[in-house]
Amino acid sequence: MTKVKIAVIGAGSIAWSSTVVHDLLHTPTLLGSEVYLMDIDETRLKRVGAFARKYSSELGVDYKFHLTTNRKEAIKDADFVVNTAMYGGHGYYEAMREISEKHGYYRGVNSTEWNMVSDYHTIWGYYQFKLALDIARDVEQYAPGAWLLQLANPVFELTTLISREVKVNVIGLCHGHLAYKEIAGILGFKPEDVEAEMIGFNHVIWLTKFTSKGRNLYPLLDEWIEKKAQEYWRKWRLSQRNPFDIHLSPAAVDMYKRYGLFPIGDTVRGGTWAYHWDLKTKQYWFGPTGGPDSEIGWMLYLAHHEWYSSYLERLAEDPRMPIAPFFPASRTDESLIPIISSIANDEPATYQVNVPNDGAIDGIPNDVAVEIPAEVSAKGVRRPQGLRVPGKILKSVLWPRMLRMEMTLTAFLEGGRQILIDWLMLDPRTKSEKQAEEVWDAILAMPGNEEMAKHYRG
Amino acid sequence: MTKVKIAVIGAGSIAWSSTVVHDLLHTPTLLGSEVYLMDIDETRLKRVGAFARKYSSELGVDYKFHLTTNRKEAIKDADFVVNTAMYGGHGYYEAMREISEKHGYYRGVNSTEWNMVSDYHTIWGYYQFKLALDIARDVEQYAPGAWLLQLANPVFELTTLISREVKVNVIGLCHGHLAYKEIAGILGFKPEDVEAEMIGFNHVIWLTKFTSKGRNLYPLLDEWIEKKAQEYWRKWRLSQRNPFDIHLSPAAVDMYKRYGLFPIGDTVRGGTWAYHWDLKTKQYWFGPTGGPDSEIGWMLYLAHHEWYSSYLERLAEDPRMPIAPFFPASRTDESLIPIISSIANDEPATYQVNVPNDGAIDGIPNDVAVEIPAEVSAKGVRRPQGLRVPGKILKSVLWPRMLRMEMTLTAFLEGGRQILIDWLMLDPRTKSEKQAEEVWDAILAMPGNEEMAKHYRG
Ligand SMILES: NC(=O)c1ccc[n+]([C@@H]2O[C@H](COP(=O)([O-])OP(=O)(O)OC[C@H]3O[C@@H](n4cnc5c(N)ncnc54)[C@H](O)[C@@H]3O)[C@@H](O)[C@H]2O)c1
Ligand SMILES: NC(=O)c1ccc[n+]([C@@H]2O[C@H](COP(=O)([O-])OP(=O)(O)OC[C@H]3O[C@@H](n4cnc5c(N)ncnc54)[C@H](O)[C@@H]3O)[C@@H](O)[C@H]2O)c1
Repeated sequence: MTKVKIAVIGAGSIAWSSTVVHDLLHTPTLLGSEVYLMDIDETRLKRVGAFARKYSSELGVDYKFHLTTNRKEAIKDADFVVNTAMYGGHGYYEAMREISEKHGYYRGVNSTEWNMVSDYHTIWGYYQFKLALDIARDVEQYAPGAWLLQLANPVFELTTLISREVKVNVIGLCHGHLAYKEIAGILGFKPEDVEAEMIGFNHVIWLTKFTSKGRNLYPLLDEWIEKKAQEYWRKWRLSQRNPFDIHLSPAAVDMYKRYGLFPIGDTVRGGTWAYHWDLKTKQYWFGPTGGPDSEIGWMLYLAHHEWYSSYLERLAEDPRMPIAPFFPASRTDESLIPIISSIANDEPATYQVNVPNDGAIDGIPNDVAVEIPAEVSAKGVRRPQGLRVPGKILKSVLWPRMLRMEMTLTAFLEGGRQILIDWLMLDPRTKSEKQAEEVWDAILAMPGNEEMAKHYRG
Repeated sequence: MTKVKIAVIGAGSIAWSSTVVHDLLHTPTLLGSEVYLMDIDETRLKRVGAFARKYSSELGVDYKFHLTTNRKEAIKDADFVVNTAMYGGHGYYEAMREISEKHGYYRGVNSTEWNMVSDYHTIWGYYQFKLALDIARDVEQYAPGAWLLQLANPVFELTTLISREVKVNVIGLCHGHLAYKEIAGILGFKPEDVEAEMIGFNHVIWLTKFTSKGRNLYPLLDEWIEKKAQEYWRKWRLSQRNPFDIHLSPAAVDMYKRYGLFPIGDTVRGGTWAYHWDLKTKQYWFGPTGGPDSEIGWMLYLAHHEWYSSYLERLAEDPRMPIAPFFPASRTDESLIPIISSIANDEPATYQVNVPNDGAIDGIPNDVAVEIPAEVSAKGVRRPQGLRVPGKILKSVLWPRMLRMEMTLTAFLEGGRQILIDWLMLDPRTKSEKQAEEVWDAILAMPGNEEMAKHYRG
């Protein structure tokens, strides 16, 4: 049991706040730790603070929660800094999406092959990149030697950027890979008996191993596809209400057939525009919600967010409502808190992490963040070496995605207009250079984008 | 305080179950009453039963809840029968909607001018009509003199049908009219100070009086439209996540400008196809969700349903969770239980009800159900007489809607194919008679529609 200082930046995050607190409170190996919850939004900060304190006293568990709007105070001498901050709020990006759509860019200029995820803000994420880099630099300066756990998206871009630009131990984390458990369950296997290896980039990971007690499950997957998929899809088309219910969608199976390995988690949300041209296309591949990244699915996500937020508020504030019954009895599947514990207590264990490649996957430069299973302990991250994916995946999926990442990082680091235009000249939605010029003019003219416009001038 | 027997048919209804129970438990004037919860779905029945018993014992309130799948047992000698049953479940209608869309009928052949509401099943509601009529006949036979409170939709059609075909005291109820309170609130008035009169048909009601302490609020509404609407809509377009947030939408204001009175509640969901051609049109008039009756808004509703259902299950079953904190401290605004109390205790009060016109609104036949405020007591429903709406509303809105109702009732009562075809020959989405023939062929060929197909043969 080791007491540490943990700073959570963007602690009001709706996607993360309650889970981080819940998991901590169910982790005896970190008992007595100091947790600094930091956010610029005081209302959200108060809410997560009230939630954390009420929940910890309900469970009788000793964690010390501090609330602050001062980032430096939170980070100073921390052992772990968790970044879940998203600049601007979801509405800011929805506004850019709407402008894009007026110019013929369905789902926004930010969406590209293998990154259709609606809050994975790359080319239009100027402020988000700046914020993440500032946080990393604060860690370098005020908490040298600390671990930065990057949960805020885009994990692929930001982990690569930070590891190149800042001297800090950074690990990017994403829970998407856990979807292999649902696939195992549908095939009739207990998730806890299944071993899976998934590698690639964040949101572009492919199932390289899939066994249960030594038995290869791929043949069973093939059989399921041949004999059971049609009936499964028939029912699923009538009942899909959760847009994230796409792990065995026609899109997933089609990707498997085209590329030779099964795509896992958010990978299924990607693909080329062939899966995404418009709502009807999305519905064909991702079910009646169109998947999470359609105008239906994303609205469901945002509405659920809003509902969840008011629900947390009631749990946090109404003394008549106990919190525990609303959460699982033990820690969730998220790896964030276990990783902190593995490092703090030097208990090596294997986690799905995003770290610079350093030889882990063949054919990927060493300074590009890959997502792989790796052993994490006080000594750091021990990567496997020489993992391989089929040539089609490497050249036709990972490289195009890597290209977008490199273009985004260059745009952010060097500025200037040309790269924005070229970004769209590689996009099949673009019908003329004029269209590309005009959509960027409109986005950069949006109130709030003044600094970004300056950065991309000339 | 009077003890009565209340039967709730379709008691597992997600839209109604928890509210009916909550309101009863907060109504001392009916204490000691016997409540028969009836549903054909045992899982749902058990859930609402567990919810009702847990909640009543938590509040220490004496109501007797009986669970049954036997409709006759529930209805026999009841004083009040509440019908919230919907045949087939939402998925059944979604399947017909999908088939319709394949043939060019966006949102389904059931949608027409002034009835775009996605679960207001008229022309394709054959089984729903049959069920409602069967229930009414059971009331006539096993509980003569009882009151039938028709909550299941389509309230307009079913109230008219039942009052024509069955000897029973029927009142149709809909909470849509309560939306006037939200409008008052946005204008800055306390809803409890405001008097509103809304008349027409269910889901097609128009604000004929709107005052606060004697002051006419229409001029303030005009001023709001002129000076504040634009700014309100700008913000609303960025933040609308609830598809029902349309009471002061551009659609509502446009209807007011065209027809001269403000449309209230579900009325705003109606209008001609001018507001509904496609998703983009709906989004222009009803905000980014497209309103409740778009592919976005309706999926939000269904997903929320599903979520609410699992939430009720947890509340009902987890002994660690108290129920009361999740509900308001007193009765909701729904009029169902107050009406029962007014009749049972002979305490006259005015409610918004759906009853045969009988002279209440000028220009409407007496045997057509109108929605009006009326005094309800043990002596029955005392309608106001000679209410009027502007000619444009009567001729261009209410009559077309009444025509659809009469066509539906004739189709249901007489059968045969011609009326189904004519239904679509009056629809601007129809481009050829072939299209109308084909879509009905496809709908009637759907598994589960065998009896309906037989009814509409020839
Ligand atoms: N890694 C994963 O598995 C995963 C899963 C879900 C979401 N996410 C990512 O998590 C992030 C948060 O998502 P969300 O939906 O919770 O968003 P959110 O808007 O609810 O939360 C973001 C929080 O960051 C705060 N914030 C904004 N600017 C800040 C600043 N300068 N300093 C400190 N805090 C600041 C906001 O006030 C807000 O409380 C997003 O980037 C999202 O893509 C990651
Ligand atoms: N009047 C209003 O203000 C208002 C508001 C919302 C919904 N509604 C209407 O209420 C109805 C129910 O809506 P919902 O969303 O709760 O639907 P639902 O499907 O959740 O509930 C309907 C219930 O009826 C039951 N049922 C089906 N066939 C039955 C039968 N033969 N006998 C007994 N029970 C049967 C089902 O098992 C189910 O529990 C719909 O018609 C809907 O349009 C009316």
